[in-house]
Amino acid sequence: MTDFPGITPPDAQAEAAALARQGTLTKPPGALGRLEQLSVWVSACQGVCPPRQFERPRVVVFAGDHGVTAAGVSAFPSEVRVVDIAVDSDAPLTPTIGAHKVRRGSGNIAVEDALTAEETEAAVEAGRRVADEEVDGGADLLIVGDMGIGNTTAATTLIAALTDSEPVAVVGRGTGVDDEGWARKTAAIRDALYRARGLATNPLPLLQVCGGADLAAMAGFLAQAAVRRTPVLLDGVVVTAAALLADVMAPGARQWWQAGHRSTEPAHSLALQRLQLDPIVDLQMRLGEGTGAAVALPIVRAAVATLGSMATFGEAAVNDGGQ
Amino acid sequence: MTDFPGITPPDAQAEAAALARQGTLTKPPGALGRLEQLSVWVSACQGVCPPRQFERPRVVVFAGDHGVTAAGVSAFPSEVRVVDIAVDSDAPLTPTIGAHKVRRGSGNIAVEDALTAEETEAAVEAGRRVADEEVDGGADLLIVGDMGIGNTTAATTLIAALTDSEPVAVVGRGTGVDDEGWARKTAAIRDALYRARGLATNPLPLLQVCGGADLAAMAGFLAQAAVRRTPVLLDGVVVTAAALLADVMAPGARQWWQAGHRSTEPAHSLALQRLQLDPIVDLQMRLGEGTGAAVALPIVRAAVATLGSMATFGEAAVNDGGQ
Repeated sequence: MTDFPGITPPDAQAEAAALARQGTLTKPPGALGRLEQLSVWVSACQGVCPPRQFERPRVVVFAGDHGVTAAGVSAFPSEVRVVDIAVDSDAPLTPTIGAHKVRRGSGNIAVEDALTAEETEAAVEAGRRVADEEVDGGADLLIVGDMGIGNTTAATTLIAALTDSEPVAVVGRGTGVDDEGWARKTAAIRDALYRARGLATNPLPLLQVCGGADLAAMAGFLAQAAVRRTPVLLDGVVVTAAALLADVMAPGARQWWQAGHRSTEPAHSLALQRLQLDPIVDLQMRLGEGTGAAVALPIVRAAVATLGSMATFGEAAVNDGGQ
Repeated sequence: MTDFPGITPPDAQAEAAALARQGTLTKPPGALGRLEQLSVWVSACQGVCPPRQFERPRVVVFAGDHGVTAAGVSAFPSEVRVVDIAVDSDAPLTPTIGAHKVRRGSGNIAVEDALTAEETEAAVEAGRRVADEEVDGGADLLIVGDMGIGNTTAATTLIAALTDSEPVAVVGRGTGVDDEGWARKTAAIRDALYRARGLATNPLPLLQVCGGADLAAMAGFLAQAAVRRTPVLLDGVVVTAAALLADVMAPGARQWWQAGHRSTEPAHSLALQRLQLDPIVDLQMRLGEGTGAAVALPIVRAAVATLGSMATFGEAAVNDGGQ
């Protein structure tokens, strides 16, 4: 049985110290806006104030294809790579990339389960192992990305199921489908949601029926990263769908995450709202592969630098206006 | 007489080439969102495709204080630095910082002109010289920042005058004034606007009556940067007020600018709208000093990298889905 130990929140003492230190920096209180909140969050995650600059941020991209592309939901053929969880290919992959492969593609969720129960557990466990490998390897910040054909369809289905939303309200253009493609995608999601009725509070069966191996692996990865007390920047709609599930599997895990960006997919905004995460940037990106979160990384670094490098009024001996 | 030669737009041929190249990169069209638009803009500014990564971006901070602080509009005392245009201080400054100083503080615009006509011209010319120095020194991207006490009051007045807005609609909290401070600030701006009536299309008299030496210098700097065909990232409300004036003094100059960020000042959004500039990030920052634009710089760099480093479908020999 795939379960995760209770998630402990980031360090409250370091958080309080960071908040207090922000108030003494040589600037008007609040003037650095979101950077202040991010700096305090990093302090809390690291359990130290001021926080350390990230030395080993790692981008992990989970690749998997989805049989639902048979329903004509995507504008692109299947040719992708990286941690191969379920790419629909027998093409030679490096041993590293292929080490965690669960199956060739996930099932067409419009008409069949994405996975078997065993495959679902295996995929979640694969993600958990990748998280352990990364943290054991010294990663101090993780960025999760997705790669695959048909994955926005499965992700949108999961988000609709978990938030009890109508398909028409959440279906976007993915990587660029036209009107007819959008209609086919919406129909496929409606069919998949019908197959998944009643499973909204059951993460593993939900992933089995209307998710996919890559999504299950990402959910396992995200839950385990929180178990290991390692901060994460989420990417787009696919990763955030997995994050919604991970926070059900490991309640409280979301305290260890920030949303790197807001993509153009309507379901992404819905999932972020449910997770109470406010994206760092909004650049109308919709590529996935960790790109949106990677673009936000320099901003998180800048936030860390404010607490780590900016002088306090005390250090600078500047009149604080109160004397 | 301070005037600027006609502004030539960024290179249309490089722009077209960049737009075409974006369409051939190994990703769905449009998937990089705002990054694509920024990459095309940089190509056009540099007149080359793919664009070169920035090698010498420079942050230039114009410092000046404002007599309107006598009206109780600010929460902070006057203790600032960098290109000193009109800091209210005789304290020893380095020769470099003080080389362009126009006067000690600008007048209290609620009751008197900020500057004389001669000082206004001298300040615009000082900004123009600083731009020339930077471009001659090899700067390939300029970030303009402000520093000073009372400058959001003068900037807000200029923006209200140029956009024919009511003070109450545009006055923000600056670096953190309370309710009474806000009321005093609004009253001071109303008085200054009354003194400036009829000057909305006259940049120099407007700067003289209700602007300030730092704002005049920034306007001269921004206009000259466009004359020298050098791209600029604008910072917050003070810099953007100067940008509004610079685009009147040198029509078309705004084609050479991007808005680095959206600050929390209402007047900033109004000025951005007038300039038809969409800020790259919105992080609720309100520090000035170039910080908002500096945070956006890595995103512009990432945009440049997409056109410069990402493979095209042709280069990667990937099936384009059309075959």
